[in-house]
Amino acid sequence: MEPTGIIGSSVPRVDALEKVTGRTVYGPDLKIPRMLYGKVLRSPLPHARILRVDTSRAERLPGVSAVATGNDLMVRYGLVIQDQPPFAQEKVRYIGDPVAGVAAVDPDTAEEALGLIKVDYEELPPVFDPLKAMEPGAPLVHEDLGSYWTVPVFFPAPGTNIANHFKMRKGDIEQGFRDSDFVTENIFSTPMAQHCPLEPHVSIAKFEPSGRVTIWSSTQHPYSVRREMARVLKKPINHVRVIVTCLGGGFGAKVLLKLEPMCVALAMKVKDFRPVRILLTREEEFYASVVRHPTITTIKAGVRKDGTLMALKTQIVFDTGAYADAGPVVSRSSGMSITGPYRIPHVWADSYCVYTNKPVGGAFRGFGVPQLMWAMDSTMDILAEGIGMDPLDLRLKNALEEGDTSVTGQILHSVGIKECIRKAADAIEWGKKPGKYYGKGIGTLYKMTQTPSSSSAFVKMNEDGSAEVLSSTVDMGQGSATVLAQIAAEELGVQVSHVKVVSPDTDVTPFDHGTASSRSTFHMGNAVKQAAADAKKQLFEVAADQLEARPEDLESRGGFIYLKGSSGKGTPISAIRMGVTYGKGKPIIGRGTFSVPDATPLDQETGQGTFPSIFWLYGAQGVEVRVDPETGKVEVLRVSAAHDLGRMINPLNCEQQVEGAVATGVGLALLEEMVIENGKPVNRNFRDYRIPTSMDAPAVDAMFVEAAHKDGPYGAKGVGEPALAPTAPAIGNAVYDAIGVRIKDLPITPEKILKALKEKKGENK
Amino acid sequence: MEPTGIIGSSVPRVDALEKVTGRTVYGPDLKIPRMLYGKVLRSPLPHARILRVDTSRAERLPGVSAVATGNDLMVRYGLVIQDQPPFAQEKVRYIGDPVAGVAAVDPDTAEEALGLIKVDYEELPPVFDPLKAMEPGAPLVHEDLGSYWTVPVFFPAPGTNIANHFKMRKGDIEQGFRDSDFVTENIFSTPMAQHCPLEPHVSIAKFEPSGRVTIWSSTQHPYSVRREMARVLKKPINHVRVIVTCLGGGFGAKVLLKLEPMCVALAMKVKDFRPVRILLTREEEFYASVVRHPTITTIKAGVRKDGTLMALKTQIVFDTGAYADAGPVVSRSSGMSITGPYRIPHVWADSYCVYTNKPVGGAFRGFGVPQLMWAMDSTMDILAEGIGMDPLDLRLKNALEEGDTSVTGQILHSVGIKECIRKAADAIEWGKKPGKYYGKGIGTLYKMTQTPSSSSAFVKMNEDGSAEVLSSTVDMGQGSATVLAQIAAEELGVQVSHVKVVSPDTDVTPFDHGTASSRSTFHMGNAVKQAAADAKKQLFEVAADQLEARPEDLESRGGFIYLKGSSGKGTPISAIRMGVTYGKGKPIIGRGTFSVPDATPLDQETGQGTFPSIFWLYGAQGVEVRVDPETGKVEVLRVSAAHDLGRMINPLNCEQQVEGAVATGVGLALLEEMVIENGKPVNRNFRDYRIPTSMDAPAVDAMFVEAAHKDGPYGAKGVGEPALAPTAPAIGNAVYDAIGVRIKDLPITPEKILKALKEKKGENK
Repeated sequence: MEPTGIIGSSVPRVDALEKVTGRTVYGPDLKIPRMLYGKVLRSPLPHARILRVDTSRAERLPGVSAVATGNDLMVRYGLVIQDQPPFAQEKVRYIGDPVAGVAAVDPDTAEEALGLIKVDYEELPPVFDPLKAMEPGAPLVHEDLGSYWTVPVFFPAPGTNIANHFKMRKGDIEQGFRDSDFVTENIFSTPMAQHCPLEPHVSIAKFEPSGRVTIWSSTQHPYSVRREMARVLKKPINHVRVIVTCLGGGFGAKVLLKLEPMCVALAMKVKDFRPVRILLTREEEFYASVVRHPTITTIKAGVRKDGTLMALKTQIVFDTGAYADAGPVVSRSSGMSITGPYRIPHVWADSYCVYTNKPVGGAFRGFGVPQLMWAMDSTMDILAEGIGMDPLDLRLKNALEEGDTSVTGQILHSVGIKECIRKAADAIEWGKKPGKYYGKGIGTLYKMTQTPSSSSAFVKMNEDGSAEVLSSTVDMGQGSATVLAQIAAEELGVQVSHVKVVSPDTDVTPFDHGTASSRSTFHMGNAVKQAAADAKKQLFEVAADQLEARPEDLESRGGFIYLKGSSGKGTPISAIRMGVTYGKGKPIIGRGTFSVPDATPLDQETGQGTFPSIFWLYGAQGVEVRVDPETGKVEVLRVSAAHDLGRMINPLNCEQQVEGAVATGVGLALLEEMVIENGKPVNRNFRDYRIPTSMDAPAVDAMFVEAAHKDGPYGAKGVGEPALAPTAPAIGNAVYDAIGVRIKDLPITPEKILKALKEKKGENK
Repeated sequence: MEPTGIIGSSVPRVDALEKVTGRTVYGPDLKIPRMLYGKVLRSPLPHARILRVDTSRAERLPGVSAVATGNDLMVRYGLVIQDQPPFAQEKVRYIGDPVAGVAAVDPDTAEEALGLIKVDYEELPPVFDPLKAMEPGAPLVHEDLGSYWTVPVFFPAPGTNIANHFKMRKGDIEQGFRDSDFVTENIFSTPMAQHCPLEPHVSIAKFEPSGRVTIWSSTQHPYSVRREMARVLKKPINHVRVIVTCLGGGFGAKVLLKLEPMCVALAMKVKDFRPVRILLTREEEFYASVVRHPTITTIKAGVRKDGTLMALKTQIVFDTGAYADAGPVVSRSSGMSITGPYRIPHVWADSYCVYTNKPVGGAFRGFGVPQLMWAMDSTMDILAEGIGMDPLDLRLKNALEEGDTSVTGQILHSVGIKECIRKAADAIEWGKKPGKYYGKGIGTLYKMTQTPSSSSAFVKMNEDGSAEVLSSTVDMGQGSATVLAQIAAEELGVQVSHVKVVSPDTDVTPFDHGTASSRSTFHMGNAVKQAAADAKKQLFEVAADQLEARPEDLESRGGFIYLKGSSGKGTPISAIRMGVTYGKGKPIIGRGTFSVPDATPLDQETGQGTFPSIFWLYGAQGVEVRVDPETGKVEVLRVSAAHDLGRMINPLNCEQQVEGAVATGVGLALLEEMVIENGKPVNRNFRDYRIPTSMDAPAVDAMFVEAAHKDGPYGAKGVGEPALAPTAPAIGNAVYDAIGVRIKDLPITPEKILKALKEKKGENK
């Protein structure tokens, strides 16, 4: 049945009222009876052998229930590479590495006990620079890398600090450069940055006498947490329950495992089955959760005079810090997007994920694509200038189209990039030259989604036609509960207020791969749609009998069942006897599973493969800036953002996703950088680390291109991540347009601009 | 596939360890953050008009958040007859009727506030005797009975106190008596009694700013509570969530609605969305929750010399007190079982449910059948004596058999009564005359289950082959979680420890009619079996692809998948790629619904109908007693209990159900009676109301007959209620056998025995 107006409608968020009235219970608000407070002792050294940990005084402190160290839960976890212990074993690898934990009756006692733990270290030579870390003879962060279990699509190099090396080889790279009329090679970099969710990470673990354990956690990945904790605890998976608390933001910081292993290690040691909570302080959130990978990208590109892109040679190095976490995924994702949304016949790219003795790099809205696009879309403008072509024309000339083959060999479908570029350019009046010190720039986006991956859902219908959706998608503020409610309501033919989407809990909500990679609307949307269709089928079977019709002749909308094509008034669903009281019928319960078809892994040596991603996201953004040549300050005057998300389910929600991501993008372009000195995080609070406030957030003109995807629910793809990536290159290109200097190292600070202006002046003399 | 040893095996209870270590969190242990404590002001008068309720002083007491009266939630609830307000409106109908409620920061403040509420009453003439209440001109407990909504299978008589009148008419009753050689007519009675769950009733209600409400409750009927609360609150059902807390016993006391309406009425008035809890005191539990209906049964029966039962004329009056609650269901259930497990050609029976100004009668393990069987099986012994026949022979001669037609006209299937009678008799060495003052007796059982009714379940399988079962069956101590885990494990082919049955929560666990009427193993067992089979089908589809076999050639057991008929070693289910990590396959989620086929309602005038119950339970118990003629004390020396439950899923569980019910039966036979004087409950604590202690519980020889039911899971029916009913008549008959006096009014106290012995002596003089 065609959508009836729920899909594509900006229905209010289902959780709005609770949130704006302050009644939402976030993870840190949760109090489990008899809960103990856990605190973590962290390494003061970037790299050192642990000689001895003496916890005896801490254990004797009244009010302390348990002290745990690396000797307690002697395991390593990691969903991609199993390289991380709950508490450090043998050695510490960064300043902030957990060495011991205390569970006590209150946070002060726990903190006091930390001070009583004595740790003897033997310092080891650290390595901070990822390029140096890749050199032979560099100090090894993980001597045993070769013995770690690794997901087989990743390729660590034992005996080095390389946690993953993703290779992309296509065409003949040298021939490509020979065929080019203009070649440019540059080095771009992005800094370490913080996700800064308003809610810090929190986890609570509680054991039962039977050995079962319940974990409440601010996680985007409940099923991953459960599987991994069951594995390390050597329990059947059904003995571990993960209940997701309401998240106050995630942005990738809360994917995979975070505090859960430490919480469990502490809770295991508590003798009277009291639950143990660990809640990060804001300071810990900065350096001891995860950060955005700093990157160093060497990029060489060649173009013909007519604007045909010919060759791209890239080396992008992701500094993952002390542990792999999502690093290998991020670097791989980046590698698969290496060309941006452009056709390039000859490509040679290496994407590295490298260990150093620094804070741990994790997933960050965009999975490595923002870092890549910074280099790629800056390069596009350099190429355009090199051949004297308008950067807009260069982009349009080389932009991918429906049916094109991607760099990996995939035939592309649902490709809205050209329309995005045009819309974004039009909206900032591209071609209309602005005044002095004003500039315009364009950036783009090309991003895969986690493939293969699966989502499942249940839909239960109540006897009044209202329903519950059981899904493990985590609504961390992005509005997934609203979107899934819309999809279920549309499919069932009921009002959105009559659908409740329940919060993820691995005991009851069925499997989902995880809330990340802009995959929920597509994957879980499909699962919910299917589950709702299954429920509707059952409803119609019951209704057909009662209405003396055939099930296939029925349709439902607005809570009523109609005979197809009849003009009669419908029968309210509440009048259908679902067998839940005295009478006929039977309860209505639907199930749905969306599973991406099998994908052949990409070839290790060439990165070639026909199905690396079920869908690709495309987008383009234009910005206009003004640069103050006296202060070096960049003012973002306007941002146009055009994104191909397949189909809008909730336009207002889509706009909000774009606005939020653009604001973060502006912060990353202009303001944010975690400063690490000799491994030590220097700025670790909101005074010293500046994120954009609502006053800094620019006006965003969000626009959408609906290149419907044949497998998406109502054609939808996703929109969680895209608007972050194009922001920085668009700003960088606009700054160049304004004042003729190109900053290659983010963030674009006033100091860098003043310095560049000064150098340029010197050159011009 | 044939069961592989899980079905029929006494696996330990899945919740045993938590319970014996005291770690189970029962309802009263639950603390919701910011929870307020609710207390209830109850009527001191049995029947009165409320002139005025002044709550102003209570409202001003510091610490009081809300005061609610009948003016606040002006609705009536009731799943059978909507006759009950949350707080009394216009008038009070029994001593204990809720008049107002207070929610305060602590119980003492709430209690103090209750003392500040002033209520002016105008006394009305009360009616306590149910027979007098049926007379014309009796004071009316519900003047508006005719305007109350009623489930259409019940028949209240407006303008009277009759809440339901169930009629059973078969054959020609007068002809039946004329054809009899011996006729006897007697009046039997049973007293008001208390369920005495160790955990008193508790409910917590919490509103959200969006208007949604969550109710945590010690209920056997989560879906009924939800539907009824949504109805009275005029909300879509999905705006009400009912989470079942862990029950410490139910026995029927926790079916339908209990504290929930009061909790919700109070929580609605709390301005800052704090949750409100009401926890009954033990004293309130006695007189202000529900009680077992007292009954008065006039029973006339006729038999031929050869032992053929000919006629039965019965009037059974259930005193339901001030509100209907489950009374109409109980009286109807009793009416359908009116013949006991015996063939009788001519039957005329009237089962009445009658209002009085006394505590409310509710469901009680057996739904009216214990009261009926007390009269019926005592009568059987009187008949046997009347024709000089052994009571065992009389029973066997008239006992129902497979294919017999019941009194309602149903052709019976799965009828194990004869074997039960023989087994129970053999086990107490029937026929072997015991010594002086020793006696033996037999009682029987014949019980329907709630029909029609439905159950649904989901089964989620994890990637290691472990699974969760989502079911709304409430495990209140009877062991349903263990039995459902066994059924799911058997069907999936995994270990029982690899299945977790989650606790009912209407947001997530699918519809179930309710945990009552011995229906869960049959109905939910079927739903779980079907859901597991659905999951297994999906598993085999994934596995077939991987194992290069056809799904239909696969089978699973012990966590392994085998090729049918092959002797090879199997593939662990954990090796099947369920698509939850990188790789092939898809998540496994199953659904199942068991819905009893449509039943034509019984004819109102004759009680005739072909399908009143999907299955019938049969049982027989023998007892041996010793009566001390000096003290009148009855000692139960041994009890044999043989029950036809279709098929044992967990033999130990079945035995425990029988032992528990027999103990309760002994209490009801010999000890328990709630004394009401002028409407006032006199004994309302465990000192004045005596239940059997573990020292009083007799040794029980539990035996089972497995007359497999064609529609039961593995043939199973149920065993929750049956062993209570036969206990009292068996003891009564044994007492007669021992000392020649027949007590017709339960309990059989020493005083009654001494009085009867004295009267007998007088007669014999």
